This record gives sequence, C-alpha cells and structure tokens, in this order.
Amino acid sequence: MNYFPNALDTLIDKFAALPGIGRKSAQRLAFHVLSLPEEEAMAFSDAIADAKRTIRCCSVCQNLTDQEICSICSSPKRDQSVICVVAEPRDVLSFERGREYDGVYHVLHGVLSPMRHIGPDDIRIQELVKRVAAGGVNEVIMATNPDTEGEATAMYLSRLLKPFEVKVSRLAYGIPVGSNLEFADEATLLRALNGRVEM
Amino acid sequence: MNYFPNALDTLIDKFAALPGIGRKSAQRLAFHVLSLPEEEAMAFSDAIADAKRTIRCCSVCQNLTDQEICSICSSPKRDQSVICVVAEPRDVLSFERGREYDGVYHVLHGVLSPMRHIGPDDIRIQELVKRVAAGGVNEVIMATNPDTEGEATAMYLSRLLKPFEVKVSRLAYGIPVGSNLEFADEATLLRALNGRVEM
Repeated sequence: MNYFPNALDTLIDKFAALPGIGRKSAQRLAFHVLSLPEEEAMAFSDAIADAKRTIRCCSVCQNLTDQEICSICSSPKRDQSVICVVAEPRDVLSFERGREYDGVYHVLHGVLSPMRHIGPDDIRIQELVKRVAAGGVNEVIMATNPDTEGEATAMYLSRLLKPFEVKVSRLAYGIPVGSNLEFADEATLLRALNGRVEM
Repeated sequence: MNYFPNALDTLIDKFAALPGIGRKSAQRLAFHVLSLPEEEAMAFSDAIADAKRTIRCCSVCQNLTDQEICSICSSPKRDQSVICVVAEPRDVLSFERGREYDGVYHVLHGVLSPMRHIGPDDIRIQELVKRVAAGGVNEVIMATNPDTEGEATAMYLSRLLKPFEVKVSRLAYGIPVGSNLEFADEATLLRALNGRVEM
C-alpha cells in the first residue's frame, strides 16, 4: 500500500517508530507537520538535530546536560556527599519538582533486567562505583522504581557499595508498590525521601 | 522550572505542540529521540525537513504528492470524468484501501466552518470549480464527513456546481452519522459509494 509520496511515507514511519504512537496517530502527526508553516516545520526538524547534537551525559552524574558537568553537580548549594540513584533522567525531574532534596544524583540510564539482557555493564553502574570509591560520599539513596527490576538493581548496587563503608538507603514505601516514579506526586515523593531506611 | 538543558526543552515543546500529545508524552518522546543512535535521530530530523520540502499539492486534485501531478491524476486507468471530493488527504487513503473506486479525487484541505472562520476562499474550492468548468466531468461525488460542517460544505458545493450541469451526488448514509470518515471500514465506505444519491 503506497498511496503516499515516499517522503511522506518515511515521515509516517519515523513517527510510528516512537513509543506509544500507532500507525493512525503517526499519519495524523505527519499530516500536521506538513500543514505547519515552512519555518515551524524546519524548527521542529532542527530541534531534533540540535538536541541530539548538544545534549550529552554529565561526566559526574550521567544526567542529561549541554555542558561537561550538569548544573546540579556544579551547584555550590548542593550537598555532594549524598547521592540519589535514579534509573532515568526524568526521575531527576520528579525529585527536583519537590524543591527539597539538596543532594546530587546519579542516573543509571536503565535498570538491571536479565529478561531484556540488560546487565551491570549496560547501565552506568561503574561510574557510580568510581564516584563512591573517590570518597567524600556519606550516603547513597536508592531511588529506582519500586518494581521487581528496580528493587533488584537497588539490591545489587547496595551489595556492590558495601566495601566502601558508605551508608546505603532506600526510598521508604510511601510510593505505591508496582507504580512508576514518573507519575508520583511531590508530597508522596517527599514522604518517601524522608522515611528512607538503611539497607 | 528549567531542569532540562535548553535544547531538550525546545524539543519537548515541539512534541507537545503536536495534536494529541500532552506534556508528559512529549517528554517521553524527547527522551526516546535522545536515546536513539545518532544516525536514526538525524534520519528523523531529515524526514521532517524532506517531507516539508518535497511534498506539495497536486496541481489537479490538490492531494499531497512529490510530483507536479499526482499518481492518481496521471494514471490512465482512472476515470477522469468522475471526481470524488474529500476534505483531507487522509480521506483519499480511506477510499484507495477499498480498491474499487476508479475515478479521481479533489482534496479541499478543510471544510467550510463559520465558527472557525474558514470560508470558501480558505479551502480549495476554486480549483474544483475550474476543473468542472474545464469540461469532461460527468459526476462530482461529495465525500465530506457526515457531520454539520461536512454536510454544509457539500451543500454549498452542489449549489456552486449547478450552473455547469454536472451530476452532483453524495455518499449514501451507509456511513454512521456523526462519525469520522478516517475511521470507516472499507465495506461501509464501498456501500456508501455504491448507494450514492443525486442531490
């Protein structure tokens, strides 16, 4: 079925490859882009290229940034001795919205998952171990999602960090088990942060 | 709230501006794009630019094409004397999937809508009148959506085409009233096509 010109088919394919976008939605989005004024469509195209070109991982915490070291890691107001370990960059945003946590982060960019063949070398675990090994860290707070893979990752990390004699804690179960950190409200997240327990 | 680097914020904004994409979804899509390999992200960016640059409206039927005249209008197998008038390019696809209609199309790129300030000069009505005035057309089939605006547009066009003594018909109400052409199944569309009545 090739009723559309190639360039349009290609664009529909690209949209359809995005997570949560079906074929029909992809068509709608592609038609919408074609209906945009020239400069707006080009701005969209450029935004993708720019983001991909300029955004990289902070050399300290691995969060997304457009600098060598992200604004949180380089802030003198943040307590560098407390590291909150999260799975994804969006989880940092969830904590930052609460405006109360003043430590720093470490973004794993995934969780351990034998089912999906994601092992310790596929996520940013070595970078965390190096940070802790370098010293100056008093506490590592595990804030992976409260599901099987998140728990297993936290457990794995806590064992890995044991030799460094650093306090390793876990978010309290204020967060409903089985849900997703991304959708937690700020109050729940704060309660979870304050009620963290040593593991 | 500016926890993301600028280039990422811009990309999220662009996704959020698409129809049906909320802020949270836009974030997910932007993160997904950043997680793509360099060449895939650039291919997405290029697809938008390419589509916008190469896709234009067929000079005859106004459907989207990458040539001067689209493949349907230039096909010797299609009956140039029957024109099916649709509101959007995606509606052409709905008919083409049925593989039975062998006439040509005219894409209005919208419908008349006093509420949204869309008048006869804002959609491709003049182009249709010129095609009919040029002669060789036996029948014009109105295939706008069976809602108020679609009906009003069909009615307006049928009056406009009256002086040219061409048969003007309307899709039969096989299509459920109030629904959307885009989601009609092929069988229903065919029944509607075959049962069309003169207006």
